[in-house]
Amino acid sequence: MTLVAEPPALAPEQRTTTAPALEPEVEAETKTKELVIVNWSGEFDRILPMLILSSAAGASGVGCKVFVTFWGLLPFVRDGKRLTGENWMQKMLALMQRPGIDHVKLSKMNFMGMGPWMIRSLMKKYHVASPRELLEAAQAMGVEFVPCQMTMDLLGIRREDLIEGMGEPAGAAAAIEMMTGANASLFI
Amino acid sequence: MTLVAEPPALAPEQRTTTAPALEPEVEAETKTKELVIVNWSGEFDRILPMLILSSAAGASGVGCKVFVTFWGLLPFVRDGKRLTGENWMQKMLALMQRPGIDHVKLSKMNFMGMGPWMIRSLMKKYHVASPRELLEAAQAMGVEFVPCQMTMDLLGIRREDLIEGMGEPAGAAAAIEMMTGANASLFI
Amino acid sequence: MTLVAEPPALAPEQRTTTAPALEPEVEAETKTKELVIVNWSGEFDRILPMLILSSAAGASGVGCKVFVTFWGLLPFVRDGKRLTGENWMQKMLALMQRPGIDHVKLSKMNFMGMGPWMIRSLMKKYHVASPRELLEAAQAMGVEFVPCQMTMDLLGIRREDLIEGMGEPAGAAAAIEMMTGANASLFI
Repeated sequence: MTLVAEPPALAPEQRTTTAPALEPEVEAETKTKELVIVNWSGEFDRILPMLILSSAAGASGVGCKVFVTFWGLLPFVRDGKRLTGENWMQKMLALMQRPGIDHVKLSKMNFMGMGPWMIRSLMKKYHVASPRELLEAAQAMGVEFVPCQMTMDLLGIRREDLIEGMGEPAGAAAAIEMMTGANASLFI
Repeated sequence: MTLVAEPPALAPEQRTTTAPALEPEVEAETKTKELVIVNWSGEFDRILPMLILSSAAGASGVGCKVFVTFWGLLPFVRDGKRLTGENWMQKMLALMQRPGIDHVKLSKMNFMGMGPWMIRSLMKKYHVASPRELLEAAQAMGVEFVPCQMTMDLLGIRREDLIEGMGEPAGAAAAIEMMTGANASLFI
Repeated sequence: MTLVAEPPALAPEQRTTTAPALEPEVEAETKTKELVIVNWSGEFDRILPMLILSSAAGASGVGCKVFVTFWGLLPFVRDGKRLTGENWMQKMLALMQRPGIDHVKLSKMNFMGMGPWMIRSLMKKYHVASPRELLEAAQAMGVEFVPCQMTMDLLGIRREDLIEGMGEPAGAAAAIEMMTGANASLFI
């Protein structure tokens, strides 16, 4: 599992949340449960439940892998990074959605950016972590984010364009193996 | 699968539909299967398969829990209830989608309400129950609808604003536990 | 399992990909894994992962059934076929999305057809099969596409309107049984 380099919002003891379930004697009795999420969407209102569910899984000692594919890869592009696809098509596709976790939009009624802002404000008021904080928390709690190789090729995204701490790029066959080996799978 | 035309409220005996499969001797042989649905969307064309699948599960003796979250909570708001959020943001978010099961819209080409109307007409013609009827049938057949606490907080929805017969509000960790303990899970 | 009548692009040996896992002695040790996909959407960017995941499952020896429902049925309508619903409502609903696998659109920013064209061009450049090729490959590798009977009724689609090689139409109860009997399920 990959731990993020700088998890500012997380106390060290939170990192060990999943540890008990990994001890051999415990595992012999009850195998650690596992959740796999296919993160297909790059929109705010789908990224949010993906992050909340994956970080909740991590916090509950449930193993969690997120296969990051299609539009869903764009929020994982490094902040401030301009995508430099080899051709204009890749550039146009990337333009469809500004990359980076801070630029995700609502799937409907974006209200020129006001919809996400309202939800962000409410989240702040009710002490729900921001997408960026949730992502860092999930990584710190051992959630593995696996980028889809085919999406990287199609959109001209290289490993160094992605945020730190992501897993090795993988293909559909690996995603199938993850899902069929887990206790639950979701396509978000 | 034939669904009741109008099950007025919840007749107590209907709740025990799944009971036979829960008897010890039966459970020893074949444990009752379970389906968990995360009902994220509040749109007509996603609410519909959610209701059809959950009520079909109930009718087949398959246990079914629906975790009702984000936009998906709005159709479960009591009919004719005006949401009285504490602030204008909650009100605006609620306005994005008029609450109540009778006001759900198509995700695309709503045609100013004509799309859902056409589908409703076809459903009536082909004897498919309406969303409201399907919801009542699902509840009567033991499907448990669990509202997401965080969504209730964010949108300013209180328990008394929701329709009758819903389960205790729960968080993401409970949803994870439901999903990883079930035979299948869907994010709709 | 259903094999397509004319799988032009597929060499015969590809059909036997799943064979090893089906041999009795192997099955005794490790039962063939199974993935079930509910194909609800008819949009290009959801049809694509559905086809990539199902064909990857087939190629990996993982059994795969796809329950084809709602908007998701339209791409499976025979090419060049005009839907002849019994009434104008069915015709209008069918018009919402031109049927056939070659006419699927992006869920957002379709750019008057340019979005799918760009992705198709990139897919060609990076040697990713087209939706049509992926569909034929998936069928040839034993992926079973099961049309939803209720959707066929609602949209006025008859069996002869669908592409060749699809399974018997089935209802929600059958879909529930598929899902709860499989190792993983996705709603795409």
